[in-house]
Amino acid sequence: MAYFDELAEVVTATRAEDLPPEAVAAAQESYLDTVAVMVAGRRAPAGAVVAGAAAELGGRGRSSVVGGDGTSAATAALVNATCAHAEDFDDATLLGFGGHTSAILVPTTLAVAEEVGAPGVEALAAYVVGYECILAIAEAMNPSHYEKGFHPTSTIGVFGAAAAAARLYGLTRAQTATAFAIAASSASGIKANFGTGTKPLHCGRAGEGGITAAVLAGRGLTANPGAFEARQGFRTVFDGRAADPAGDGDRGHRKPGTWQVVTPGIGLRKAWPCCGSIHTTIEAVLQLREEAGFTAAEVASVECALHARRLPHTNRPDPDTGDQARFSVQACAAFALLDGRVDVGSFGDQQLARPDLRELMARVSVVADPEATAGSPEMDGRDFGARVTVRLRDGRTLRRGIAQPVGSPDRQLPRSWLDSKVQDCVRGPAGELRAVVDRLPRLADLGELGGQLRSAGTEAR
Amino acid sequence: MAYFDELAEVVTATRAEDLPPEAVAAAQESYLDTVAVMVAGRRAPAGAVVAGAAAELGGRGRSSVVGGDGTSAATAALVNATCAHAEDFDDATLLGFGGHTSAILVPTTLAVAEEVGAPGVEALAAYVVGYECILAIAEAMNPSHYEKGFHPTSTIGVFGAAAAAARLYGLTRAQTATAFAIAASSASGIKANFGTGTKPLHCGRAGEGGITAAVLAGRGLTANPGAFEARQGFRTVFDGRAADPAGDGDRGHRKPGTWQVVTPGIGLRKAWPCCGSIHTTIEAVLQLREEAGFTAAEVASVECALHARRLPHTNRPDPDTGDQARFSVQACAAFALLDGRVDVGSFGDQQLARPDLRELMARVSVVADPEATAGSPEMDGRDFGARVTVRLRDGRTLRRGIAQPVGSPDRQLPRSWLDSKVQDCVRGPAGELRAVVDRLPRLADLGELGGQLRSAGTEAR
Repeated sequence: MAYFDELAEVVTATRAEDLPPEAVAAAQESYLDTVAVMVAGRRAPAGAVVAGAAAELGGRGRSSVVGGDGTSAATAALVNATCAHAEDFDDATLLGFGGHTSAILVPTTLAVAEEVGAPGVEALAAYVVGYECILAIAEAMNPSHYEKGFHPTSTIGVFGAAAAAARLYGLTRAQTATAFAIAASSASGIKANFGTGTKPLHCGRAGEGGITAAVLAGRGLTANPGAFEARQGFRTVFDGRAADPAGDGDRGHRKPGTWQVVTPGIGLRKAWPCCGSIHTTIEAVLQLREEAGFTAAEVASVECALHARRLPHTNRPDPDTGDQARFSVQACAAFALLDGRVDVGSFGDQQLARPDLRELMARVSVVADPEATAGSPEMDGRDFGARVTVRLRDGRTLRRGIAQPVGSPDRQLPRSWLDSKVQDCVRGPAGELRAVVDRLPRLADLGELGGQLRSAGTEAR
Repeated sequence: MAYFDELAEVVTATRAEDLPPEAVAAAQESYLDTVAVMVAGRRAPAGAVVAGAAAELGGRGRSSVVGGDGTSAATAALVNATCAHAEDFDDATLLGFGGHTSAILVPTTLAVAEEVGAPGVEALAAYVVGYECILAIAEAMNPSHYEKGFHPTSTIGVFGAAAAAARLYGLTRAQTATAFAIAASSASGIKANFGTGTKPLHCGRAGEGGITAAVLAGRGLTANPGAFEARQGFRTVFDGRAADPAGDGDRGHRKPGTWQVVTPGIGLRKAWPCCGSIHTTIEAVLQLREEAGFTAAEVASVECALHARRLPHTNRPDPDTGDQARFSVQACAAFALLDGRVDVGSFGDQQLARPDLRELMARVSVVADPEATAGSPEMDGRDFGARVTVRLRDGRTLRRGIAQPVGSPDRQLPRSWLDSKVQDCVRGPAGELRAVVDRLPRLADLGELGGQLRSAGTEAR
């Protein structure tokens, strides 16, 4: 059986009532988290540009855009998925996939569910099967696909969007397989655009492309159901692991249905709106600051020791923009020390002009932790730890090590932390959004959630 | 200077009044040819599906869809470009690029020119600079890009669409370079979907993606202007020739502005709606039939000798569908012998059920021409010849060789042939469409041409 047929079977044969409760709960938490960062991202430059272009690019319909009118499902996904990733505050799947799933799947399932009037439980089920398909294809493609320079969030994410949309549109198995094959001709996104507004656009294009593929498959457009494993098919053309002669030929045929959204679970539900490689550093600094009660003025120096793998993209002593500061250990450690928090407001461009910040950043050094580096040759999740040493002017030396970021599978993000994050993102109490997401499995449609979206997120950043 | 900056300079600095008259004339002929096949393609399955989905996918605006209402420029390009390639009757650039240019560039320039109210001469100039950019990038990417399995029509065509749209939107050089960089993250399309309705969709996605890139760049979305030559940039990620360590590193930096639409010119302006590899065979059969005055019933056998490179995709003795018959020497030769013509009507699915056709097809054989094969090791355009031998039941043997397809650069498609083609496609006299295209360089806007489009192409195939 062609691989896209196998995937399509999971998409169409999975019944919402058979999902384990833990999978539904994980999808709900992703909805809460992602809608919140979507609202925050609507104020970020990339989110604002794409949202502003929605009317020009077209679309009219029943699907809600954050801070905007109803539009087509495809356009809503384009805008909302770009917003969801614009602050780099959405969840990340650290293992296997190496990308962002919910920034694509939440906007896609929300947009199509609103269009067709699907109940909340079906939107959540579509999220879960989309997640399964992304992780299954990622296993067949990575690491060679990622290392070549493709951005799997987008190039593989488009299949998750196609799966979720196909399910919500009620496509047959054969039509769903065709949707995958059309999506294989819509996959795009290169890592050379990391660090620019085009990176979040990758999520938007994946959501829009996946929905378009499902719409066209449902209307009878033809495609090659063998387009995954064909001679010039996706696996080979996009440098999949199984296409590598030295690789494992069976990798492309792993059958999903193991609820990876539960095990291993979402990789990192972010507590802070910056690169996941810096999260353990921030947590260590905040803990030391709170426990020892010192002020930034008392700090003589800060040394942050990370796995060597984390340094090339985060050892950045002199960031120019808020977006660069998200990838700067120095800036993030200084924000944590000075303000006792790192939040969306920390990365406004004007923040970097603060003299107290610049002065403190100069006292932060970043080094490779030889012990961590030696102990973790693989990208197995054990390489995200940090050991922070703060030396005070009174001669005290404070040390703290954090092995895994909070929000990773073994350290669930506490509910109160997630509520604080939501509150920061939506600029108001988290209760209203949490209440509707809590009721999602029982809601007849997503109108209430869509209504919250439309009225949010258009104030200045 | 980054390569996308170099290309952007050509896009923004070229003045319409400086274009050589031959370039304007070539663009006009492409407009006539492509609008005609767009109308025909609206009746083909893929064109009908995508056109039918236009309202669902969104879009409202001033840009005309063939047989439809006004919509956004991006949606109009999605639909019209898919229609333009749906019959595989649009022009093809045989040398260097190995793909289809006008199926993307005509719908894109038409859609954006209508949206912004640009005069005809600017639409034609945008076509010419888009063509230049496609051929320049193709030279940096092929043949390794094509051989890997990407469909350059789409993966490189998107840059032509971005160039044309950026110019018509009046973007600055820096914004145009950014549009290229965004387009680099929108490039998609794999050859595993050849032979399906997703192949023409590749043109639609390229047109839509290029326009979206230009719209977002104009609104300030950021991207990496070095996204072509960056370490994980387009050239490397999409297996460009210059990324090959054994290749020529300068290939990626060829500066366009040599009016390749004039020299070497459009590769093949098709006289028949089938694979270009079969055109010389059709012409030889039609000539023999007309000169010798025999009927199909008198034919004992037909032998078609082609370059060996042409056989794998055209030696197809038993096609099941009209789309497969387009890639069958046997079917095309039999249509030419029986009907004295090969046109859009030849490839309706019901045609293959004709007993006279099936019986004659069984008497057509296809062989590799050892002389042609030995004489043309490279894909230099000399490998499209055919030698046809017809043996009649009365013992006569008739032979005819055709070296190059009519419509290729050295053998311009006669005006009367192009008019016949237009008439076949639009199901009416070619005069009205030709009249408006003849006046295009002097028209203040494209409203008249758009009006012809909207009222065309919705009858049954």
